[in-house]
Amino acid sequence: MKKNVIVGQSGGPTAVINASLYGVVYEALNREDTCGTVYGMINGIEGFLNDQIMDMEPLERSGELELIKTTPGSYLGSCRYKLPEDLRDEVYPRLFEKFEQYGIGYFFYIGGNDSMDTVSKLSRYAKKTGSAIRFMGIPKTIDNDLVRTDHTPGFGSAAKYVASTVREIAIDASVYDNKKSVTIVEIMGRHAGWLTAASVLARKFEGDNPVLIYLPEMAFDPDKFIDDVNEALEKVPNLVVCISEGINDGKGTFICELASDVGVDNFGHKMLTGSGKYLENLVKEKIGVKVRSIELNVCQRCSSAMLSATDQKEAIASGAYGVKCAVEGETGKMIGFSRVPGAEYRIDYVAEDVNLICNQEKTVPLEWITKNGSDIGQEFIDYALPLIQGEVKVPSKDGLPLFAYRK
Amino acid sequence: MKKNVIVGQSGGPTAVINASLYGVVYEALNREDTCGTVYGMINGIEGFLNDQIMDMEPLERSGELELIKTTPGSYLGSCRYKLPEDLRDEVYPRLFEKFEQYGIGYFFYIGGNDSMDTVSKLSRYAKKTGSAIRFMGIPKTIDNDLVRTDHTPGFGSAAKYVASTVREIAIDASVYDNKKSVTIVEIMGRHAGWLTAASVLARKFEGDNPVLIYLPEMAFDPDKFIDDVNEALEKVPNLVVCISEGINDGKGTFICELASDVGVDNFGHKMLTGSGKYLENLVKEKIGVKVRSIELNVCQRCSSAMLSATDQKEAIASGAYGVKCAVEGETGKMIGFSRVPGAEYRIDYVAEDVNLICNQEKTVPLEWITKNGSDIGQEFIDYALPLIQGEVKVPSKDGLPLFAYRK
Repeated sequence: MKKNVIVGQSGGPTAVINASLYGVVYEALNREDTCGTVYGMINGIEGFLNDQIMDMEPLERSGELELIKTTPGSYLGSCRYKLPEDLRDEVYPRLFEKFEQYGIGYFFYIGGNDSMDTVSKLSRYAKKTGSAIRFMGIPKTIDNDLVRTDHTPGFGSAAKYVASTVREIAIDASVYDNKKSVTIVEIMGRHAGWLTAASVLARKFEGDNPVLIYLPEMAFDPDKFIDDVNEALEKVPNLVVCISEGINDGKGTFICELASDVGVDNFGHKMLTGSGKYLENLVKEKIGVKVRSIELNVCQRCSSAMLSATDQKEAIASGAYGVKCAVEGETGKMIGFSRVPGAEYRIDYVAEDVNLICNQEKTVPLEWITKNGSDIGQEFIDYALPLIQGEVKVPSKDGLPLFAYRK
Repeated sequence: MKKNVIVGQSGGPTAVINASLYGVVYEALNREDTCGTVYGMINGIEGFLNDQIMDMEPLERSGELELIKTTPGSYLGSCRYKLPEDLRDEVYPRLFEKFEQYGIGYFFYIGGNDSMDTVSKLSRYAKKTGSAIRFMGIPKTIDNDLVRTDHTPGFGSAAKYVASTVREIAIDASVYDNKKSVTIVEIMGRHAGWLTAASVLARKFEGDNPVLIYLPEMAFDPDKFIDDVNEALEKVPNLVVCISEGINDGKGTFICELASDVGVDNFGHKMLTGSGKYLENLVKEKIGVKVRSIELNVCQRCSSAMLSATDQKEAIASGAYGVKCAVEGETGKMIGFSRVPGAEYRIDYVAEDVNLICNQEKTVPLEWITKNGSDIGQEFIDYALPLIQGEVKVPSKDGLPLFAYRK
């Protein structure tokens, strides 16, 4: 029997979260035998509770769906809404009544950890109440911190942006190469250092910038940092250092908190500044060379110019594979990537139990972090390099990228 | 008689300063009748004083010269060396002896204001002493603040980066579009707001983000800013505001100085923070919505992904035209762009008196700044749009851009 489909996006966006949306919608529209109307929820489950949904089919007819493939941000809007732990909460019957009302048989949620928690709860509630609706999670996060998958869509493009931009920053920093300088690049990732580790891909030869790389997985010692910088400056006059925003002392205090403990603005507020700014001041104080800090900020997750073709392809395929699995009877699963051993990079798409994924965090293996915590080993390079391959041509108009916008 | 050529780069880099270097070198190598060896100075005039020069011809043979065209940063290295005002200073005869020693007949300096000052002084000293060496300035600056030229090489690519990135940031900022937020983007330009003004190109329709744009040309009033933001938030829930790093109170105090007056880190140092961070705290205090500030930083001037084909073409042509003018007898000139009136965008290359250019600054005409200082008018859009047209394919390897490096 034909059932309607609903798809939503949740959490922070990536450069390819809309590619996954495209994958779900395109595949569902092409399974006319089992899939009826394909709805998008506006602002995730939170918007759905207020009946904010849209019919996706007109987007295919108008050509807009093609444009969604290369549009950053979350086309459908996002939310950070957490469903109650207690499945007896009144929100669950309310939601399932709405599913009933819209004739939903297949539910897809594209997101990270918290979104998988939503899929887990809805699928458990469905099981409890004997609902036949199938709930599937489609992964996305630049943090690459989901378990039971080789990597996550969004990471490859963000990693490509980081590596390429750090390489450009290193060139920019070296123009006054007759004077010593330190450039600190702060990269996203509070608890997992995958994206910061990707800065190593910018390096062209042993000893090249970025010479020092610090992840949140290892305790950060400011004194050792200054020693590392002094030593590195002996060999590389224009030093580039990459750090995770989440570097911490190993006992639960973020380095950026050391800064905001002290800086106070003229409203009497703590100056919330990043780890990079803090270390910039530290280098100024302790070493005295020219120093600059650069926060890559949201550009890491929304740059369309640095889309990885591999990442985009996998994001689309994971959405489409999610539809295939749901139609074939799966529920309570997240689509994962299983890397096939061998010289050539290849992945298999798999459906993994979402209950084993949500509320967990995969960090960088400690044995991939080298030089007493200031560098990244070859294992990571071998792991990450295939994920940034290939360029994507983004449609443009008047010299600027052309994106899709919800009306 | 055949004379040798020397070319240098000075000041901050741009995405196309190496394209101008390519233009000079390629043209000089192809004028074998008049041009002998083509030298590059390492770290500008400062390195030249220490005999740091290189022969550029092998780069053409190895194919490296082609790669220089799309490499950001200053291939030859840069300097911020200011020649003495007093032409009787001992450095002048020292320099001219070195010119003699290397058989230099043509000198090219690629840079902004300060570099044109160097060209001015050297050409005046040459005139005073009867030297036949010809001195030419090739413009470059993302700030677009040189007089007697329609615009400068480097501005178009930086403007394209700013407009494209602000468009992406606006998408990223709008994913939680059911909650109000303010995103402040800080753009380079201490005294001239050209690059910040380019953020208007990100706008797709009247009223679209960035809704508010503030340049250093107009006095910035924090109270009015808060009123503007409150008013704009009524219409656009996820507001993007673009500001120049150099916004100031109109009486000589930068807004960022208001912040650093107060914030003190744990070394007792003033926290040097940007205008964006200051306004982020101001919005948090006075309005209380979610707010983020983003400093585009050096990526504005070194992004190869956002090269404007128009900018790159003009940068190469200005270098080549400089060689042509010098060979034909010009000296003490800077290559300028004269826009030909008409519907189609077209420029003529002209040689302008460098003495009328150096140490001056061209700011955005006040009549191009609208809405009481918070927006940019159509005149600017008409002016800037042709400069960001066209994409450049950057050579890549292993998923990352491939650049040229001095050995």
